[in-house]
Amino acid sequence: MQPQTIKIRVRYSETDKMGVVHHSKYFSYFEMARIEYLRNLGINYSELEKRGIYLAVLEAYCKYKSPAHFDDILTIETSLSRLTAASVKFNYKIYREENEQLLVEGSTTLVCLDTNFKPRRIPEEIRKAMGME
Amino acid sequence: MQPQTIKIRVRYSETDKMGVVHHSKYFSYFEMARIEYLRNLGINYSELEKRGIYLAVLEAYCKYKSPAHFDDILTIETSLSRLTAASVKFNYKIYREENEQLLVEGSTTLVCLDTNFKPRRIPEEIRKAMGME
Amino acid sequence: MQPQTIKIRVRYSETDKMGVVHHSKYFSYFEMARIEYLRNLGINYSELEKRGIYLAVLEAYCKYKSPAHFDDILTIETSLSRLTAASVKFNYKIYREENEQLLVEGSTTLVCLDTNFKPRRIPEEIRKAMGME
Amino acid sequence: MQPQTIKIRVRYSETDKMGVVHHSKYFSYFEMARIEYLRNLGINYSELEKRGIYLAVLEAYCKYKSPAHFDDILTIETSLSRLTAASVKFNYKIYREENEQLLVEGSTTLVCLDTNFKPRRIPEEIRKAMGME
Repeated sequence: MQPQTIKIRVRYSETDKMGVVHHSKYFSYFEMARIEYLRNLGINYSELEKRGIYLAVLEAYCKYKSPAHFDDILTIETSLSRLTAASVKFNYKIYREENEQLLVEGSTTLVCLDTNFKPRRIPEEIRKAMGME
Repeated sequence: MQPQTIKIRVRYSETDKMGVVHHSKYFSYFEMARIEYLRNLGINYSELEKRGIYLAVLEAYCKYKSPAHFDDILTIETSLSRLTAASVKFNYKIYREENEQLLVEGSTTLVCLDTNFKPRRIPEEIRKAMGME
Repeated sequence: MQPQTIKIRVRYSETDKMGVVHHSKYFSYFEMARIEYLRNLGINYSELEKRGIYLAVLEAYCKYKSPAHFDDILTIETSLSRLTAASVKFNYKIYREENEQLLVEGSTTLVCLDTNFKPRRIPEEIRKAMGME
Repeated sequence: MQPQTIKIRVRYSETDKMGVVHHSKYFSYFEMARIEYLRNLGINYSELEKRGIYLAVLEAYCKYKSPAHFDDILTIETSLSRLTAASVKFNYKIYREENEQLLVEGSTTLVCLDTNFKPRRIPEEIRKAMGME
């Protein structure tokens, strides 16, 4: 599937005393973007958890190129990069909307878990929705 | 019971672009202080939840007198102010340790809930530990 | 001015182990709503800070009626309730969009500060925009 | 220098609806550990910023092996792994104190910035304190 984008506005509470968005906050931005990516594929992650299927973060990475500031509108571009039987990797790029400057690049790898938090195969319907046989 | 105190150090991630602790963070400080208050009474809140007993916040209030800064050591003083059949109110005062300056005062009222998140009577052992018949 | 509303979607990172939005997060929701309220009045809070004018939280209060959950769309209604020479009070109501249920009610009082973080009179243009002579 | 450890207790507000610490929070844990590491070297990071010297995160990585839970005591082990003219890399391991289980491993690379947020050479005294000529 094509990369997908969402837009968010930086909250005051996300900044730190350096006057910029705290580096840990981008992982919540990635999470929001990933959930919307899934929604666009027809996968409601909230419903998934109600059925006892979890996608837990196994690995997270972020490279910071330029800081985001309070009140900036950010464009978060999400793409699916790799899918194994039980895991899936997303890549993210965040731009400042105003000048299209690339601010951060990152990725998260998620593993599919059952209600006992044991790894399990990603359900067929999700694999299909994600474009994998 | 006497008021009890804990000490914490302000984290960088708790500051905002005004260079001070973001006002919402004090409610997490209150929560930590309350959990230690209960622990000192012999009540392990984590165990309580495992038994299906929750203390959920019903009301929260904070008055900000002076800002806390990154790396400040804060003294949080907690006292129990009121106890009904199903609810309990805690009062908090936060001081900067260095100069004993009062920074914020606040309170939270909590209601006791069962596993269905319905109000229930506070268990007898907790009422006793809290000094109420 | 009429109350104004914004809509936000609850983030996964805003929930806690009780499965609901952590009580401290509503104060960040109030903050977002207040900044949009000001923007609608023609006041860009980010620009205000660049000019050395701050609105700092003096008092915050929230009453929790029913929990918000992950992925809920929330409607935040903001109204201006009181304005003095140097301070302003906002009231907030948060509803779950889906069923229009009132979840929380709260308020914050803010004081206008100068670059030395000393209280100062709210600038005339803002008083006018807020409908006060 | 030898790796150094700090201990922290998991806060309720750091958990999410999966019942575990939200993956983004570990980056704040790393930050706290790094600041204590520097303090043990005789470097007060708060003072450093007052002098106009910043250490900004350039890259952050975390691998999640097992979840931390509310009220767990965590041991965070920090070591210095690499130092260039303007940047420094820290490695972290977080263990659950109770059973010494390794929960996460991660790293952050920081770049030294001046008051204009331009990269600058790490001050000599800090390089020395960090054991680099």
